[in-house]
Amino acid sequence: MTASAALPKVLDRIDRDLDASLERLFALLRIQSVSTDPAYAPQCRTAAEHVAADLKGLGFDVSVRPTAGHPVVIGKSGSGAGNGKAPRVLFYGHYDVQPVDPLDLWQTPPFEPRIETLSGGRKIIVARGACDDKGQAMTFVEACRAFKAVTGSLPLDITMMIEGEEECGSKHLFGFVRDNAAELRRDLALVCDTGMWDAETPSITTSLRGLVYEEVRLTCADRDLHSGLFGGAARNPIHVLADILSAMHNADGAVTIPGFYDGVHELPADIKADLAGLGLTPEKFLGPIGLKLPAGEKGRLLLEQISTRPTAEVNGIIGGYTGEGAKTVIPGKAMAKVSFRLVGAQDPDKVREAFRAFVRARLPADCSVEFGSFSSAPAFEVAFDSPSLGKARTALAEEWGKKAVTIGAGGSIPIVADFKTVLGMDTLMVGFALDDDRVHSPNEKFDLKCFHKGIRSWARILAALAG
Amino acid sequence: MTASAALPKVLDRIDRDLDASLERLFALLRIQSVSTDPAYAPQCRTAAEHVAADLKGLGFDVSVRPTAGHPVVIGKSGSGAGNGKAPRVLFYGHYDVQPVDPLDLWQTPPFEPRIETLSGGRKIIVARGACDDKGQAMTFVEACRAFKAVTGSLPLDITMMIEGEEECGSKHLFGFVRDNAAELRRDLALVCDTGMWDAETPSITTSLRGLVYEEVRLTCADRDLHSGLFGGAARNPIHVLADILSAMHNADGAVTIPGFYDGVHELPADIKADLAGLGLTPEKFLGPIGLKLPAGEKGRLLLEQISTRPTAEVNGIIGGYTGEGAKTVIPGKAMAKVSFRLVGAQDPDKVREAFRAFVRARLPADCSVEFGSFSSAPAFEVAFDSPSLGKARTALAEEWGKKAVTIGAGGSIPIVADFKTVLGMDTLMVGFALDDDRVHSPNEKFDLKCFHKGIRSWARILAALAG
Repeated sequence: MTASAALPKVLDRIDRDLDASLERLFALLRIQSVSTDPAYAPQCRTAAEHVAADLKGLGFDVSVRPTAGHPVVIGKSGSGAGNGKAPRVLFYGHYDVQPVDPLDLWQTPPFEPRIETLSGGRKIIVARGACDDKGQAMTFVEACRAFKAVTGSLPLDITMMIEGEEECGSKHLFGFVRDNAAELRRDLALVCDTGMWDAETPSITTSLRGLVYEEVRLTCADRDLHSGLFGGAARNPIHVLADILSAMHNADGAVTIPGFYDGVHELPADIKADLAGLGLTPEKFLGPIGLKLPAGEKGRLLLEQISTRPTAEVNGIIGGYTGEGAKTVIPGKAMAKVSFRLVGAQDPDKVREAFRAFVRARLPADCSVEFGSFSSAPAFEVAFDSPSLGKARTALAEEWGKKAVTIGAGGSIPIVADFKTVLGMDTLMVGFALDDDRVHSPNEKFDLKCFHKGIRSWARILAALAG
Repeated sequence: MTASAALPKVLDRIDRDLDASLERLFALLRIQSVSTDPAYAPQCRTAAEHVAADLKGLGFDVSVRPTAGHPVVIGKSGSGAGNGKAPRVLFYGHYDVQPVDPLDLWQTPPFEPRIETLSGGRKIIVARGACDDKGQAMTFVEACRAFKAVTGSLPLDITMMIEGEEECGSKHLFGFVRDNAAELRRDLALVCDTGMWDAETPSITTSLRGLVYEEVRLTCADRDLHSGLFGGAARNPIHVLADILSAMHNADGAVTIPGFYDGVHELPADIKADLAGLGLTPEKFLGPIGLKLPAGEKGRLLLEQISTRPTAEVNGIIGGYTGEGAKTVIPGKAMAKVSFRLVGAQDPDKVREAFRAFVRARLPADCSVEFGSFSSAPAFEVAFDSPSLGKARTALAEEWGKKAVTIGAGGSIPIVADFKTVLGMDTLMVGFALDDDRVHSPNEKFDLKCFHKGIRSWARILAALAG
């Protein structure tokens, strides 16, 4: 029986098994796997072993692999699964969660998962990790389980990689992927850590912006000066910095650094029309944060501005006297942190060098600059004509009764860039989070409907990929 | 006997009495009158009473006047002194001193004054207050003492006002002057709290720049934002602030705020030629602080830039993330402290309002600004054709054998502005400090030669003013 032929029974099984699926999710949610706090290392280990045991029960060949931090769970369905023509996939998720403080803002204890029924009958799962990423990752695991129960095997050759440090920067995963590249290299990566467009509209994240992050430290005089004695003659590094930062954008909101837009390309017309059709106005997007006027490049859709266009932002600035009251100082130094969101084929190294040259070109001859470098990740994009993407769009549309949106995410998921650059594979990012899920905040939740239909969505996608 | 006729004998008496003058200065220097630390309030009181007793011995009608802080010593020679045609003068000085920390950097205890002989035979008086202002104020008192000894009376109608809070902002003196305006209003104020051009060249400070100090607090979004999610659409207040601060100066270093230069006038040609003749190059002035290129208005002498031209300086700026490492935040708020040095007839209130209008005009419609106001003092200037100024220049030239320089001071002495605005009188600022006096720092000193010739200088100025 092909996966597609089995799908109706698989979906039926998912519906009938939902209470048990929830119980399994709750068991995982009860483990306090806060990765950033060393005090919770044993609980992280427990979560890894819990996941490993669950995957073993589905027939995966499982190992809990040590890193210098929390372990990575690897599960392999082996080449017996799948039909040999379908893509072999690597599913990535994480078993760790964010810290829970401020604890007093939680209405119930964060590691005691519960179902709450909101007015109108909407049901939500409340717990730390309910959405990010235990709830989302379990949608995929439960879809696998349903296939296994109905057909006796998994529909594809699936490798699971569930890590425990996503919430503290995945810092050991990068080396792990490099060290085990041959073992992890598959045809396609699947990630369930992104969101829906809205509660009715499924979405596939087809691009992630890259990031270059620089610190700029200017020095003019070799000490702080009294503005009465030196004001009018001594160079003020805050003025120099303000001039540089102000020159970084023109009046149309475009970045003026020479070469910055190299590698940036326009969206295909149909995709741009799709985005326009979503009707995300500046008022809708900016209203909730107290703004109303878009500040980016003129002549662009707001959705373009935040996802498929590159940016330059000053993330921090400090210089001189910043305490209470007045101090008439001309400081010797000033500092800014500046980051760039990258898209398309923008080269992080070239952007960094172009920025540094831009700063140096505006520096008075008797001042000096030091740069600090913090992040460098290229943008990630799935080709809009990728067959896997097409199949996933169709599968999602069938489940949700609505066309799936393909959108760019404004932020970066560094490991996805590594899947591309180190393992040479694309990633299909499908997720079921909603904007109001309070991810990273007290009272995190995941809609029961998103969990349930998320499992069904993955079953459809797996069947579609199995072909 | 006129004061002028008595002058040779007075100068001779000053020379012969120098050791005793030093002893009297040392007695005052031993009093630990640190005004800013409440623990030293009794010592401040002691210093006030010490000064009062000394003035009483010179025939002044003395009172130690309470304020909400440390007392003010008032001494009046009465209308009997002077010839009725000469200007009645108010001499201002202060008996309080700066704190002494870091104490371990003092080579000898700060309140145990001593004479040190440097290589080459140059002698210096070392103690806290040796220059600022006990040593300088005593040059005037000793000149009065010599007149009294030689002629039996003071050469002019002199009112002494010696306060005890200069080093902590003179905060109660402003009200004291207002409350006692009729009693303190004289024809001319004399202040001995400024410096020489160099060790050979006497100087009269003929102008002080005024000050307007503003804090600018911008708000864009009502919270801090993730630059991945909002970057490209949300307004960044650091960008707004950088644009505003950068726009404040043009490429020639001039301030662009409309109306800013109203009330600024050019120096008389002869005075400007005098300044040019001093040969203060950017290299000489900026070299010691690690700079070499003047940053102010193009086409101006460096001495103009720092003394007779107005400025706009950003004294502090902060916004977003300024700690270690990277945080991809678009902050909701950013703040800067901006001050303006004023000259001539610039109106502080108008400058403040012009700056605020300049900021508001550049503010996006969905952002807001709050202003904080810290200082507001107009510039002070003595008319270059003032008869008193001419007499003092001649007297100083006779004492030092060199033309006296008239210069503007870049900083403000707020009480001098009050003498003008509240009491309606000009101030003649003559002082004998040198650039290496370490005022406010450990091992403060005053050259013995400056003390001695300072006394002689005042004797000559008093004689000249007495006509």
